[in-house]
Amino acid sequence: MEKVNILEKFNKINTFSQPGIVGELNGQYVKLVKHKGKFVMHKHTNEDELFMVIKGNMQIELKDEIIDLTEGEFFIVPRGMEHRPISKEIVYILLFEPKTTLNTGNKIDDATVTDLKWI
Amino acid sequence: MEKVNILEKFNKINTFSQPGIVGELNGQYVKLVKHKGKFVMHKHTNEDELFMVIKGNMQIELKDEIIDLTEGEFFIVPRGMEHRPISKEIVYILLFEPKTTLNTGNKIDDATVTDLKWI
Repeated sequence: MEKVNILEKFNKINTFSQPGIVGELNGQYVKLVKHKGKFVMHKHTNEDELFMVIKGNMQIELKDEIIDLTEGEFFIVPRGMEHRPISKEIVYILLFEPKTTLNTGNKIDDATVTDLKWI
Repeated sequence: MEKVNILEKFNKINTFSQPGIVGELNGQYVKLVKHKGKFVMHKHTNEDELFMVIKGNMQIELKDEIIDLTEGEFFIVPRGMEHRPISKEIVYILLFEPKTTLNTGNKIDDATVTDLKWI
């Protein structure tokens, strides 16, 4: 039971697009991820997913819309909605989502992380 | 389905210690609250509660410990644990907790907010 300094935790992340767990509550995880580039388009059938930008800028590409997010902004992708994060430069993202959420949702590919770790 | 700019939402809050809802996902709410002073000591029997400091500093007083939190830090109070937020100056706090969570938990008093509003 310790407090979490978000930027200190980000300093421990060396791999892009691999979320690390930093908190657990009520069946949900708080995760941090560094991302750069275009992620795979995917959806989560039963889970809503919150993206909060801690540092940098990103876009969340939906089917018919692009959401621009900068530091201090968040967006909740509703369950069932196709989406993918995109960023030209490195972006630091905080995620809130159920413990069951797989990073690539319904698309299993090289980017899929099945062994989430605490950082 | 819109993105949320956290500081813009805080600018709409005029009352201390009254949380406003800014997001909903997976049976949880994201709430924002401006706080100053000592809140009532209380606990949530069935809900874990995340406090993230967006601006300023605060302490979370537990039974045998005080957690110091500053900007960019969060702490999860486990269900059943007595706690209260304290801050000498105004602090901007983001909360992540189940929709059922009452701000004063098991202590019903003047500070209790039963009609949470979206902001």
